Amino acid sequence: MSCMVSANAQIQNDDIFKMPEMDRSNIRKLIRFPDFGGYHTMKCDLHSHTVFSDGDVWPSARVIEAWQHGLDAIAITDHLEHGHLVRKTLAGDFNTSCDIALQKGKEINFIVIKGTEISRAKPFGHMNALFITDANPLSTPEPLDAIEIALRQGAFIMWNHPGYPDNKSTVYPVQEELIKGKKIHGIEVFNEVDVYPVCMDWCKNMHVAFMGNSDIHELAADFYGKDAIRPMTLVFASERTEKGIREALFAGRTAAYFNGNLAGRPEHLSLLLKASIEAKTVDDGKGIVEVTNHSDISYRISFDSGQVDLPAGKTVRTTLPKQGKALVMNCLTGMREYLSIDLPL
Amino acid sequence: MSCMVSANAQIQNDDIFKMPEMDRSNIRKLIRFPDFGGYHTMKCDLHSHTVFSDGDVWPSARVIEAWQHGLDAIAITDHLEHGHLVRKTLAGDFNTSCDIALQKGKEINFIVIKGTEISRAKPFGHMNALFITDANPLSTPEPLDAIEIALRQGAFIMWNHPGYPDNKSTVYPVQEELIKGKKIHGIEVFNEVDVYPVCMDWCKNMHVAFMGNSDIHELAADFYGKDAIRPMTLVFASERTEKGIREALFAGRTAAYFNGNLAGRPEHLSLLLKASIEAKTVDDGKGIVEVTNHSDISYRISFDSGQVDLPAGKTVRTTLPKQGKALVMNCLTGMREYLSIDLPL
Amino acid sequence: MSCMVSANAQIQNDDIFKMPEMDRSNIRKLIRFPDFGGYHTMKCDLHSHTVFSDGDVWPSARVIEAWQHGLDAIAITDHLEHGHLVRKTLAGDFNTSCDIALQKGKEINFIVIKGTEISRAKPFGHMNALFITDANPLSTPEPLDAIEIALRQGAFIMWNHPGYPDNKSTVYPVQEELIKGKKIHGIEVFNEVDVYPVCMDWCKNMHVAFMGNSDIHELAADFYGKDAIRPMTLVFASERTEKGIREALFAGRTAAYFNGNLAGRPEHLSLLLKASIEAKTVDDGKGIVEVTNHSDISYRISFDSGQVDLPAGKTVRTTLPKQGKALVMNCLTGMREYLSIDLPL
Amino acid sequence: MSCMVSANAQIQNDDIFKMPEMDRSNIRKLIRFPDFGGYHTMKCDLHSHTVFSDGDVWPSARVIEAWQHGLDAIAITDHLEHGHLVRKTLAGDFNTSCDIALQKGKEINFIVIKGTEISRAKPFGHMNALFITDANPLSTPEPLDAIEIALRQGAFIMWNHPGYPDNKSTVYPVQEELIKGKKIHGIEVFNEVDVYPVCMDWCKNMHVAFMGNSDIHELAADFYGKDAIRPMTLVFASERTEKGIREALFAGRTAAYFNGNLAGRPEHLSLLLKASIEAKTVDDGKGIVEVTNHSDISYRISFDSGQVDLPAGKTVRTTLPKQGKALVMNCLTGMREYLSIDLPL
Repeated sequence: MSCMVSANAQIQNDDIFKMPEMDRSNIRKLIRFPDFGGYHTMKCDLHSHTVFSDGDVWPSARVIEAWQHGLDAIAITDHLEHGHLVRKTLAGDFNTSCDIALQKGKEINFIVIKGTEISRAKPFGHMNALFITDANPLSTPEPLDAIEIALRQGAFIMWNHPGYPDNKSTVYPVQEELIKGKKIHGIEVFNEVDVYPVCMDWCKNMHVAFMGNSDIHELAADFYGKDAIRPMTLVFASERTEKGIREALFAGRTAAYFNGNLAGRPEHLSLLLKASIEAKTVDDGKGIVEVTNHSDISYRISFDSGQVDLPAGKTVRTTLPKQGKALVMNCLTGMREYLSIDLPL
Repeated sequence: MSCMVSANAQIQNDDIFKMPEMDRSNIRKLIRFPDFGGYHTMKCDLHSHTVFSDGDVWPSARVIEAWQHGLDAIAITDHLEHGHLVRKTLAGDFNTSCDIALQKGKEINFIVIKGTEISRAKPFGHMNALFITDANPLSTPEPLDAIEIALRQGAFIMWNHPGYPDNKSTVYPVQEELIKGKKIHGIEVFNEVDVYPVCMDWCKNMHVAFMGNSDIHELAADFYGKDAIRPMTLVFASERTEKGIREALFAGRTAAYFNGNLAGRPEHLSLLLKASIEAKTVDDGKGIVEVTNHSDISYRISFDSGQVDLPAGKTVRTTLPKQGKALVMNCLTGMREYLSIDLPL
Repeated sequence: MSCMVSANAQIQNDDIFKMPEMDRSNIRKLIRFPDFGGYHTMKCDLHSHTVFSDGDVWPSARVIEAWQHGLDAIAITDHLEHGHLVRKTLAGDFNTSCDIALQKGKEINFIVIKGTEISRAKPFGHMNALFITDANPLSTPEPLDAIEIALRQGAFIMWNHPGYPDNKSTVYPVQEELIKGKKIHGIEVFNEVDVYPVCMDWCKNMHVAFMGNSDIHELAADFYGKDAIRPMTLVFASERTEKGIREALFAGRTAAYFNGNLAGRPEHLSLLLKASIEAKTVDDGKGIVEVTNHSDISYRISFDSGQVDLPAGKTVRTTLPKQGKALVMNCLTGMREYLSIDLPL
Repeated sequence: MSCMVSANAQIQNDDIFKMPEMDRSNIRKLIRFPDFGGYHTMKCDLHSHTVFSDGDVWPSARVIEAWQHGLDAIAITDHLEHGHLVRKTLAGDFNTSCDIALQKGKEINFIVIKGTEISRAKPFGHMNALFITDANPLSTPEPLDAIEIALRQGAFIMWNHPGYPDNKSTVYPVQEELIKGKKIHGIEVFNEVDVYPVCMDWCKNMHVAFMGNSDIHELAADFYGKDAIRPMTLVFASERTEKGIREALFAGRTAAYFNGNLAGRPEHLSLLLKASIEAKTVDDGKGIVEVTNHSDISYRISFDSGQVDLPAGKTVRTTLPKQGKALVMNCLTGMREYLSIDLPL
């Protein structure tokens, strides 16, 4: 802001000249993802690491960072290792990172979800237990024991990055069994900078929640770049609380977001799209419309005779068919399956 | 937008590879200035020039440019010269520029206001006649005759840039007389890159509309720079039509905007501010609040013990006094007079 | 710039408060395309229109715009029509637009090239005559007569957008004949927002200059968007003068630039690349290097085992093969043919 | 980069679709501060904290962050506490943070300077010991003992933020004594978001190095905002090595940089300015020049008849006096004392 008259109440003399406006740590980005249908669209990153496993930042800093970047909730999900922390230069136990983060969350009124990551080589792979109450008993030799303990704590179990580290996304018997037993409640289709197309079909067919998360170890602003938005899970919650997020997750009211792409159920994506845009007829005879996209999600609409981009935060003047079907190319409802909508918008 | 799967319906072969997304001429910037109190906040530039006087662009291009830049209405106000156009290489009469612009406005459904600028050396100076029906009879030897003819056409008369070109803002007898006769309805307090502080007092005391306009001759995006918003008159209109603008202008429901600063009546500015921001208590005991500014106007709030910036499109976590008065340093209600508001926000 | 101590020599009082820093019309963008091999890399747009044919801006404004946008030269190439200007509201003859532009160029020390566009339906299509001395005699019924007159004036003849308007890029007998007679000296491979891949092969095989131009009719900053660089012809000239440009054009020392892509001869593109980047070994054993790209052109290097982006104005730490061949995917030397380079960089 | 033809060698199939270009952690910002007079202008932040005292990031992350942000060297300067680390959840000793950082520096070929901060209440205040070999013995009850031990290790002693925390910049007897004994070698004039004008006079009069540093505890990209450059010490070094930095620091060849402002000795600042800009005459008669500022530092030139801004990375066309003195308003050589230069530029 460049004020015409600078009436500055700060201390500015020869001893010290303060420029508090240079400190941006109390400023939060506004991400415009619209609410719809009575639900709050909550921007959640449900997979993150701190110095208490192999991450780069102190737990309280993960919370501040998430708040600054415009998220509504973060889960701290440090790795469990058998009986000791990853780093020898750290003390504490497996609850320490979440305890520190929860304290900061309380201080700044930001939702922090207590979690942990249960990691093994494949076939088990990695799974996050979210909304746990005590991480220490989950450090078991047998990962399925950890899952059971977590479930008894009321945990939501997420299957993390199924295509990591071998670039194959495979449902092994262990996951088949867990899914059958309703012990996996969500699957990551976006993780860090990777996408798992086939997992979108799994979410659709197995009726579990579409999940997208950063799995951030580094400093998020430096990892994703200055204008980027990290992968996140959009949670369509009845109330803006941890309880609201939990209920929506188990109900499967989510969409995964990354790099301008959404993956989720058609009933959610179509309402999110409708809540994002506003169409106005300019010339009915010629089919010319003005479409304003009030959201921070750009959409690409494809139809028989062409394609139209609806950039985030812009109005577009364009020609659209007056009726018929269109596909939204950045809204995926399954593997190579796009959200289908009816025209007019 | 970077789509994961690029299903491009455009022609892309060895003969021709079309990249229509590079053509931004059908894309319009979204400027978020909120509506309030049943009024539409319309962004108007009521002073502009084309090649038909001493401007650089064709009239239809002024209209497209204004649409792209996010305005809701533009007035074309080319200079009148006695009996001939400024440029020998042009034909047409004093209505030609507006006729071309109005035709384009009709085509793209954008409000174009027919106007002209009556220019003389001081003491008369420059005045715009807006909402005229025929510019030709206004090309009179005596400028006051032109004013009378314009008034008979129902014109709104704006006194342009009172401090130009001698850097003195002076009310001469000619303006005093016109104001007394209610023949001046608005005064520019912002013009191009200049501000006229004393004129804010005039608007306040003489009960005429606060006006801010670009007076653009050049290409606006190049003149003001890529992220800049030109000076404009915010018109608080009952309906989004030319008629709505006209009614609001005569009623004095306007504010002038430039470079992050607003000048207007306190009853309008305070409602605009309230409609822009949303405050949430974080810690009532410590007086910590989160203030989200949903608008594209940054505000600076000053109070006894300090000062807080509310940047456009951001949330700020800050400490504010729980009650008392504050000044909004970028909202001017007169010369060196700031909007006073009550805390809490 | 936010100065700690604001010692402002501008007039700032209650009558008028000047903010000249808001006027960006005297500020020019710096485009960093490096010189090499004793040549100056000159950024030229050799195809543009003004209000004197079907363009939107006054000729002098085209010159200012080109200067502001960081170009080194512009050609004004308005259409010729038989005996009259396109617009009835204009006077003047076919030299008027260039005369006005040349006058402005002289004033601000910017190279303006006098040209015109000879336009017919296909098979002739559109051709620009550049460096002409008098446009009026080129308004002939027969376009080949106009070409001959232009050639007698010493013109460089450019074949414009061969794929326009039928989306077919075809060499008809008329062009075959002209090329055989060395009467076409360059072909546009980029025009406005279109690319003509097959024309890259023509330039290569027929030994004519690769050309890329905006053909701008609108306001360039609004048409291409705020950060975009318009299509241009990079001319590798011995001296920074009109004469230098002319000599280089006839010698075929050019490359066409658009949207991050270059098309030209391998000997030029490889030297431009080398002049853009600087590589430093970080870990010789692991093949880790740091590559700094000092230019405003991003490069994408592809090799057997992977691919590396070298973003404009950034340093990248990456692993590259220690030797072998690589392709530069944004440097085209023909249709579907990429610049081949030797590693290490 | 938007490539016309996307030949992507990455793995992209239904199991996994990798988008490595979204990971920016191997990309480094290029800050263009020119070299001059045979010296390398090295961008150094000589005051930073990690989780091993009260900072928010792991030591190796501080190094990656500094590399990404375009610095050439960083000093890790965690606080010493008597016999224990600040945080109970950490193990290690006072060398641990630097050891981890140095290891990462070696890995990525980035200069890390071993340091520590000796902190007491005023009058002693805070001092950094840079280039130390062992931090553990510096954890003494008496801070002057720590200084002596550091000096025996060859340390450069910097007096940190003299105006903190009481907003008074005072030279107490303890500092007077140290300066007299040549045991303080530099003084921070910029720290975090504060400026100490009077300390510029101290640096000038006491012949010690001007220092500017971030004292960063948080995540720098989030603290200073996405386009900001943190405060830094520009070191004019004979070679791009730790040894080169050390030699230049003791020789006082530095300038402090923050928020577009430089503070240093006139002989350095004037050469830096000259190396940044290039002036070209446009119209000698009218005194019109074009000044290109190739650097990332904007300059503001003030003279009797006016003032000119030279924005970073832009060319400006302006009128300058043909001869005489000018002041550079963002180059401070002492308290309220500006760099004086001779015109023409």
